[in-house]
Amino acid sequence: MTTGQGMTPFASALDKKTMEHGTVLAPKFDEHGLIPAVVTHFDSGELLMVGFMNETALQRTIETGHAWYWSRSRQEYWKKGATSGQVQEVVEIRTDCDQDAIWLRVRVAGNGATCHVGYRSCFYRRVETDQNGQPHLVFAETERVYDPAEVYSSK
Amino acid sequence: MTTGQGMTPFASALDKKTMEHGTVLAPKFDEHGLIPAVVTHFDSGELLMVGFMNETALQRTIETGHAWYWSRSRQEYWKKGATSGQVQEVVEIRTDCDQDAIWLRVRVAGNGATCHVGYRSCFYRRVETDQNGQPHLVFAETERVYDPAEVYSSK
Repeated sequence: MTTGQGMTPFASALDKKTMEHGTVLAPKFDEHGLIPAVVTHFDSGELLMVGFMNETALQRTIETGHAWYWSRSRQEYWKKGATSGQVQEVVEIRTDCDQDAIWLRVRVAGNGATCHVGYRSCFYRRVETDQNGQPHLVFAETERVYDPAEVYSSK
Repeated sequence: MTTGQGMTPFASALDKKTMEHGTVLAPKFDEHGLIPAVVTHFDSGELLMVGFMNETALQRTIETGHAWYWSRSRQEYWKKGATSGQVQEVVEIRTDCDQDAIWLRVRVAGNGATCHVGYRSCFYRRVETDQNGQPHLVFAETERVYDPAEVYSSK
């Protein structure tokens, strides 16, 4: 795969009007060179996950049609699904008004789950508050697609 | 409004199992004290915007039922809709497996738009590539809810 090493594939430093009303892709990466990527399922619209991309991860995603991220915890490139099979086939990429966020609309290969905990979506818990206003989590999804312990355990 | 100044309202430093499988809300803020918040419309499911919250903004959102953010560009608290009327009435808040992202499911007051450019969603442009693989933007939404220039211009 050509990743354009040494190239700066995207425009930068556009004026506000061109950034918001124009047709030039000029993603604004933060001081760590990252941009958040929101991932929804193309068919159902459900929110699946949020990841972070650097310039090369975004470029690879555009070039290959599969979602690539930069793992902040592991400090390495991460092709979603490379080990799990839960590859994200990108149907559409959007950006927002000030181009500091990416939206991927995807279909999910493999077993169809996105979350490493086994749920379709990483957002399987909602926030509720008790009578004192203290927040806690409640499971909004209770059915997992798979049990990661069974998949990855070695007998 | 009580914002719990001086308090640390959320748990932190949970072990991985409790973080992923438990019911304790322990949002992971980054080194700037921020967490990305994805905002979708509760009824239509459409992705409206991505913002960033610090601990107090998240706490205010939970307490008030209206979405608060931390503006990175202006370095100040930002109640969405305070000037535009496009207040986000929060129907549900979720977090993800490792609690480093927030999902707000909202209804939008005022004229129903979310984007300051006038569109319902900030994600009104998609990425397409030309025959050389070079990316550019195409308008996915063409109808604006309002023209900000007309609203804010002083005659």
